[in-house]
Amino acid sequence: MSEASLGSFDARVADVMLESADSGGGIGEFLGFRHVEMTAGHLLAEMDVRDDLKNPFGSLHGGCLSAFVDHCLGLVFYPLIPRGSWVATTEFKLNLLKPVTAGTCLATTDVLALTKRSGVARIDITVGDDIACAAQGTVTIVPPRAP
Amino acid sequence: MSEASLGSFDARVADVMLESADSGGGIGEFLGFRHVEMTAGHLLAEMDVRDDLKNPFGSLHGGCLSAFVDHCLGLVFYPLIPRGSWVATTEFKLNLLKPVTAGTCLATTDVLALTKRSGVARIDITVGDDIACAAQGTVTIVPPRAP
Amino acid sequence: MSEASLGSFDARVADVMLESADSGGGIGEFLGFRHVEMTAGHLLAEMDVRDDLKNPFGSLHGGCLSAFVDHCLGLVFYPLIPRGSWVATTEFKLNLLKPVTAGTCLATTDVLALTKRSGVARIDITVGDDIACAAQGTVTIVPPRAP
Amino acid sequence: MSEASLGSFDARVADVMLESADSGGGIGEFLGFRHVEMTAGHLLAEMDVRDDLKNPFGSLHGGCLSAFVDHCLGLVFYPLIPRGSWVATTEFKLNLLKPVTAGTCLATTDVLALTKRSGVARIDITVGDDIACAAQGTVTIVPPRAP
Repeated sequence: MSEASLGSFDARVADVMLESADSGGGIGEFLGFRHVEMTAGHLLAEMDVRDDLKNPFGSLHGGCLSAFVDHCLGLVFYPLIPRGSWVATTEFKLNLLKPVTAGTCLATTDVLALTKRSGVARIDITVGDDIACAAQGTVTIVPPRAP
Repeated sequence: MSEASLGSFDARVADVMLESADSGGGIGEFLGFRHVEMTAGHLLAEMDVRDDLKNPFGSLHGGCLSAFVDHCLGLVFYPLIPRGSWVATTEFKLNLLKPVTAGTCLATTDVLALTKRSGVARIDITVGDDIACAAQGTVTIVPPRAP
Repeated sequence: MSEASLGSFDARVADVMLESADSGGGIGEFLGFRHVEMTAGHLLAEMDVRDDLKNPFGSLHGGCLSAFVDHCLGLVFYPLIPRGSWVATTEFKLNLLKPVTAGTCLATTDVLALTKRSGVARIDITVGDDIACAAQGTVTIVPPRAP
Repeated sequence: MSEASLGSFDARVADVMLESADSGGGIGEFLGFRHVEMTAGHLLAEMDVRDDLKNPFGSLHGGCLSAFVDHCLGLVFYPLIPRGSWVATTEFKLNLLKPVTAGTCLATTDVLALTKRSGVARIDITVGDDIACAAQGTVTIVPPRAP
């Protein structure tokens, strides 16, 4: 999506998110999400594969990838929406393309569409040269609650 | 789906899963998944809403619900497949229908289709009388690795 | 979903849709969608399998099933929303569970959630005793354009 | 996806599909799918917006877009699989991002993953500069029936 059509990008919001130690509440902390780069309609984030996150078959539990998808899907919209608004996941879909056994998961999130009330983004998670997960989802932009 | 068309149900596998303290590896333990009931093509599981799993807006992080979906989607198939085979998530889709703020999430999983190589199931997560999440996904049945 | 929580049901809108010869514009006419039953949050519709709709392998083209899903997903909401509003498909997902080779496809659509701005429904398409397609999707409720 | 990892590309199969007047059986003919370009793991196809395909609100019926997605999702795999095998849609998901009112829909399909038994691809449908539909789906590769 062209940056122009995304409206205004609030770099201070992006900075806060890049520096945030608490990325995504308890589950983000547990899984160790890191925010690497954030520009208009675009987010790079990382999650390390840890042994305690693997299933009995030695692969990263799909639930870790899906939680990472949900997190990135919401986060990418914050610098694009009015301050005080928040982003709720409406729905998403993911395909797991390859078992992940070691290394660092890099999630690339790109906004496909944004209106005042909703947004759509795609998330690709790669590990090295392999694409491990491809996802697509919708968020609702919730205006600030009246005081 | 009629039980007949699901093939054989291995009650001992179901029992092991119901009694399993380690439900779903690290993320299952962290989120506290509990297996409540397991019959042919059907699974009931629970996850408590904890304050440390909420986002800054006071709702359960969507990533917790999506991880729970992924877990149940796979688990429901184990008593239906040959021992030694395993179940890998191919894909799933979920809609989050209502913010979850307190209580216990009850996931009801039902198998829609099963062949030798793949299966499809639906997962509904309710909290009290409210449906919070509706999901649908596909798994791949992986035969045992040759020794 | 309980009927109470669906708000008001406009039986006259439902009647118009049940009697409508023009069901879904050109593609609905081409595929022969028929509306069989419409109650609050619930729709039954039919589509016959025709030879000219089959792929070279003798099965109903998936595109016919997906068009039928899209049609039912939108239609089920009309008796539930204010007159003059309309329903736009936001997104949907479907699984094709079994090839369809002959007979009549019966689509059962049920509303899972409805707010002023959006709705979520599930659609199951069966042929005889077999479930051929399971789908789930979201619509946007668009208020009437100001005159 | 790198072309190398897609295995062999059968240019003669691609040529047949590009020249095919009968693109997708009855529904493809009705909707007027055209195959514009086909390389390894990549397909461009077109569908014109016609007045008789619009809904009462003046937009192209979503069912036309979803049928087009289903068609492209399957087609892109044919030059990559053994002759005599065929491709069945397992599942797909689409987001409709913008109403389509006139012009030509251009579908760009790219393969994300391919094994002997299944494949995953993404489909974007644009109209001029606008992205109207974003989709992602899975197919099953079915080996030739024994004679």
